[in-house]
Amino acid sequence: MSKPYVVGIDIGGTNTVFGIVDARGSVLASSSIKTRKHSNINDYIDELHTELTKLMETTDTVDKIHGIGIGAPNANFFTGMIEDGVNLPWPTPIPLAEMVSQKFGIPVAITNDANAAAIGEMTYGAARGLKDFIMITLGTGVGSGIVINGQLVYGHDGFAGELGHVIVKRSNGRLCGCGRTGCLETYCSATGVARTAREFLEIRTEPSLLRNIPVDEITSKDVYDAAMAGDQIAKEIFEYTGEILGEALADFTVFSAPEAFILFGGLAKSGDLLMKPLRNAMEKNMLSIWKNKVKVLPSELKEADAAVLGASALGWEAK
Amino acid sequence: MSKPYVVGIDIGGTNTVFGIVDARGSVLASSSIKTRKHSNINDYIDELHTELTKLMETTDTVDKIHGIGIGAPNANFFTGMIEDGVNLPWPTPIPLAEMVSQKFGIPVAITNDANAAAIGEMTYGAARGLKDFIMITLGTGVGSGIVINGQLVYGHDGFAGELGHVIVKRSNGRLCGCGRTGCLETYCSATGVARTAREFLEIRTEPSLLRNIPVDEITSKDVYDAAMAGDQIAKEIFEYTGEILGEALADFTVFSAPEAFILFGGLAKSGDLLMKPLRNAMEKNMLSIWKNKVKVLPSELKEADAAVLGASALGWEAK
Repeated sequence: MSKPYVVGIDIGGTNTVFGIVDARGSVLASSSIKTRKHSNINDYIDELHTELTKLMETTDTVDKIHGIGIGAPNANFFTGMIEDGVNLPWPTPIPLAEMVSQKFGIPVAITNDANAAAIGEMTYGAARGLKDFIMITLGTGVGSGIVINGQLVYGHDGFAGELGHVIVKRSNGRLCGCGRTGCLETYCSATGVARTAREFLEIRTEPSLLRNIPVDEITSKDVYDAAMAGDQIAKEIFEYTGEILGEALADFTVFSAPEAFILFGGLAKSGDLLMKPLRNAMEKNMLSIWKNKVKVLPSELKEADAAVLGASALGWEAK
Repeated sequence: MSKPYVVGIDIGGTNTVFGIVDARGSVLASSSIKTRKHSNINDYIDELHTELTKLMETTDTVDKIHGIGIGAPNANFFTGMIEDGVNLPWPTPIPLAEMVSQKFGIPVAITNDANAAAIGEMTYGAARGLKDFIMITLGTGVGSGIVINGQLVYGHDGFAGELGHVIVKRSNGRLCGCGRTGCLETYCSATGVARTAREFLEIRTEPSLLRNIPVDEITSKDVYDAAMAGDQIAKEIFEYTGEILGEALADFTVFSAPEAFILFGGLAKSGDLLMKPLRNAMEKNMLSIWKNKVKVLPSELKEADAAVLGASALGWEAK
């Protein structure tokens, strides 16, 4: 019996989004559940099964699913395990691929969310036709998916591509969720931008639209809105963020000489506010052989779609 | 007619070493010429041809050479060109693969010296059996050859793996030959160690064996000898060097999750003087999932052999 569909599941810290996808990358139907609703992983998988089965019935794809691909934090492609899921409510390690596969009776492959996004971008987005690129996801943290010669880099153990944890400040760096200090993601994630806002507002004395918001509630979106309204401090927060990210991208270039970086996530939609200081810092810090040669492109996929499509592409490889 | 031999040529800033190698990796014979003797590249290739032909005659391998592999600074595997040879006496770009191939009537493949060393190490040295490792060459500069899933990383343009030019000091970094400041190789190469010695001796007032040497003539070997003789400043120079390199290796790990780093070159033979501070700094800065998991191994090949063997291994791929 022919099985011309795949399922993509993106497990985020808040929502789990899933969809049924055909071989052309069209999402037939998608839905979501709350990741944190069940403290027991079995209950969570039960709900996922119930909801996904509904989607399959609606789309007449029951028994036509070739495989399920899952993108999840710290998910290991090689072992099928979530081995250290800092942002998830269940004890780790979790043999996720095996559990989901047994529940559905369908082969399952998993990888981390940034890798899934990279596969999605390569298959359907801004990285179509590129064999060497680096996907940078700017969300709650900073993730990355590295593609070299058309293949995702998993490394020796399946965990390669944690560029959000390159240390960009050796002294007095910000404390990171990983326990170390100075990681890229403490500066260039959405939460990093909010931290920068708090720091700038404390040090500086000028008026700012951001001072109308309780300091602990400021989000990167607030900073974006203020900057777009002409707020000077907000603009400087983006300059600071873009400069650190640009310096980092110049360093990443010497590793794998990518044709492009693809930026994904809310911050990647900040336009020139972020891209201008980013490009300036990147070119200023670029080794001469790569100066003005490496593209920085925003993702071309809708945020939810990229993750689901990327994960679903993995579904074709599941066995 | 069977052609069971390859030639490996390693073009260094000072010497050009070459050898004839069989399929088992035995060097039948090797020799060298001075790289800088001829300011005209054609004269250089003529001498190389004369000397290599002598070797072939001695070893009865004329007309039995399958291919020639060359390792040279900034040599591009894809184009066969030396595109920006800062350390070589000839104007660039040099279509080296084509020139040597025409002179000898034998297919030629080229890559940079660090990549050649990585191939040599993978084929005959400490990286045998490893599919994911990073070769770090500590010589006049710092070079690297990155192997992922058993394949050398060339990147989009053939120049990937310039880890010596990752910026490790964002402010007040040392001026690098590349024109930027703070590059890893300004600290962790043999010349970087000598620069550290000059800096330390200027700032510090304690006696040191190194003060017996004219400050501009101090080499990394002098620092090694002094440290082995118990000199405190010399030991601290190695601690400083090892710490910076260890921090850098921890950062490199997040990129490709290698099973091991292989250190190659004079400094790599410094034993615990370098390795102890290096390992301490590496583990201290390592993301927890890789703590105490990534090996740091010294090269198992003789310095000249590694380059010639690595280059020769490329010779099998030449066409």
